Amino acid sequence: MVTTPITAASPTGSSYTGPIIDTDVHETISSWKHLAPYLGEPWRGLLERGAWTKPGAPFAYWASHGVNRADSFPDSGAPAGSNYELFKAQVLDLYPIKYAILTGQFMPGIMEMQFEFASALASAYNDWLFEHWLQKDERILTSIHVAPQDPQAAVREIERLGDHPRVVQIILPIAQLAYGDPFYHPIFEAAQRHNLVIGLHHSSFVKGAMGRGRYYIEWHVNVPQGAMSLLTSLVCNGVFDKYPNLKFNIIESGWSWLPHLLWRFDQNYRSLQQEIPWVKRLPSEHILERVKFSTQPTEDFDAQTWLRLIELLGTDRLFVFATDYPHWDFDAPNEAIPRGLPAALKSRIFYENARELYGLEQARSV
Amino acid sequence: MVTTPITAASPTGSSYTGPIIDTDVHETISSWKHLAPYLGEPWRGLLERGAWTKPGAPFAYWASHGVNRADSFPDSGAPAGSNYELFKAQVLDLYPIKYAILTGQFMPGIMEMQFEFASALASAYNDWLFEHWLQKDERILTSIHVAPQDPQAAVREIERLGDHPRVVQIILPIAQLAYGDPFYHPIFEAAQRHNLVIGLHHSSFVKGAMGRGRYYIEWHVNVPQGAMSLLTSLVCNGVFDKYPNLKFNIIESGWSWLPHLLWRFDQNYRSLQQEIPWVKRLPSEHILERVKFSTQPTEDFDAQTWLRLIELLGTDRLFVFATDYPHWDFDAPNEAIPRGLPAALKSRIFYENARELYGLEQARSV
Repeated sequence: MVTTPITAASPTGSSYTGPIIDTDVHETISSWKHLAPYLGEPWRGLLERGAWTKPGAPFAYWASHGVNRADSFPDSGAPAGSNYELFKAQVLDLYPIKYAILTGQFMPGIMEMQFEFASALASAYNDWLFEHWLQKDERILTSIHVAPQDPQAAVREIERLGDHPRVVQIILPIAQLAYGDPFYHPIFEAAQRHNLVIGLHHSSFVKGAMGRGRYYIEWHVNVPQGAMSLLTSLVCNGVFDKYPNLKFNIIESGWSWLPHLLWRFDQNYRSLQQEIPWVKRLPSEHILERVKFSTQPTEDFDAQTWLRLIELLGTDRLFVFATDYPHWDFDAPNEAIPRGLPAALKSRIFYENARELYGLEQARSV
Repeated sequence: MVTTPITAASPTGSSYTGPIIDTDVHETISSWKHLAPYLGEPWRGLLERGAWTKPGAPFAYWASHGVNRADSFPDSGAPAGSNYELFKAQVLDLYPIKYAILTGQFMPGIMEMQFEFASALASAYNDWLFEHWLQKDERILTSIHVAPQDPQAAVREIERLGDHPRVVQIILPIAQLAYGDPFYHPIFEAAQRHNLVIGLHHSSFVKGAMGRGRYYIEWHVNVPQGAMSLLTSLVCNGVFDKYPNLKFNIIESGWSWLPHLLWRFDQNYRSLQQEIPWVKRLPSEHILERVKFSTQPTEDFDAQTWLRLIELLGTDRLFVFATDYPHWDFDAPNEAIPRGLPAALKSRIFYENARELYGLEQARSV
């Protein structure tokens, strides 16, 4: 949903005036060279000499106007999402945001080679983030970045930073890594121990069942398949049974496919559970209890369709609001969530569900 | 849905007693060596000498009881689905089947190498099928097999057999071939010219967004992703615009994911259509007008959920009944379709939609 001008008088375009938690804010760094002071050698030299190739997007172009909101670039010419003050003006202060959870645009998990550098970059980025974003605003909470392709290094990073009071999540890219594989379980063990949510965010390295297709739109339509495959992988490989307190947020991968997946998954479980005896409950029970879904991008359907889908799912506890700032398909709170939804449901979507997921305090009046 | 004993008195378990079209019957051949007389050299010798490797399943086992109904094996020890008389007793005569459409278990499209052999096998199998199945029962209609990896050979096969009055469809496997690619368009041109439906059936070579996963259940839960990706590929690459009379049947890949796909696809089209200017209509318009979905496997939900999904889709014209005989998750007509559905909808699902799709005559009383 594309943003349009907001009137301050009616910041959510509806009767909802309560607090908001934005669960998907893509801050970035104005130049990767700024990570150099946070790196040891040989990584620092690679960055300073411009040797790092940086993972590129597989498409020649995203949307015709690029991947970011046209108005999200600082006057300095720095990248969209790299300026706290602009983010503050365009999101934090414009809407009644109680908390915004940073998810980054930097996904060390998509580096397919030279894993040690990925782990070093993750740590450097986390240090930079603490210094340059967390200090600036008490409303800002963050994910920490790890390189899941090296689980032992990822665990060390979680041990190092996981108890910081403003760290609420470990962010992992949805790419080609099926995290259900026991190879990744040490990361989940550490996350549970530090009471951190696992945030699973799509990346440009996710593929559909037939790869990326020939066009950006093909790739983008099929992005949710990554989340479907990942949930299947997590359930079948016993992650939900093995880590009973671990919670997940599926970010920017949609959610209207969920009724289908739960029906199909439960039906298959009833017929085929002998293959995965360590999975002790219906897949739908595991998922509905332990996984949230960020709302952006919700398809453009009306309040009645929202309510029907909630009825089919049997719960209003699944959804957590997100803007996806500064990306082109930014969801403004007053537009993405239909006005006709009941007030109690809006409170769940904009605030309560995320508050419970991330273990945050009850909102004071905003 | 697992089959259970049928009482002849109530063949559809409900008030529906009208005719049925079964759009997915997996006949097979009792020994591949029986194709030898239909092949020229060097292919005949490869078959006779047992040199053909035959594509194997990627899993060590399917369901714990194998891939077929336990009662579907002929006493001779031949493969399930290879005996017309048993099929007649277990499906054709047991239910009021007006037409059954053969789809085979042989998918030359999944042969990833040595394409000329795939094309030769496709032709040989078609010839064998005409002689050994089509002759036996007027209720039997068939798909023809082609090797889409060699489009020119596929077109020749369509020219050779496409006008046979009992041929209604070209069957293509859902595997790793994204048929929207212009490389495959000659097949669609020939299919439209001969007024044949394109049947797209999942194969064990379909993958999810993260491959097959570690377990059969993971793979099986994610099978619909192949159909999602294929529809996206067909629409974005202009197949629906370029071949305005061509129709499709998505077989054995489910359908309850369709509301999600249409919402997401339309939303993306509204934002990104400049990338694919040859697509002149909303994706949902193309798909709802031109694509049917075989019902098997429908998830185990009740009549009310069926009706809600139809309401979300806005049409009852999408579904065509299928048993998937002789596979383990066979859908019996009296069990797979909930009794509580309105009679007119049952008539649509069991008969009318497939009759219209395949251009068949109005049923006489059965």
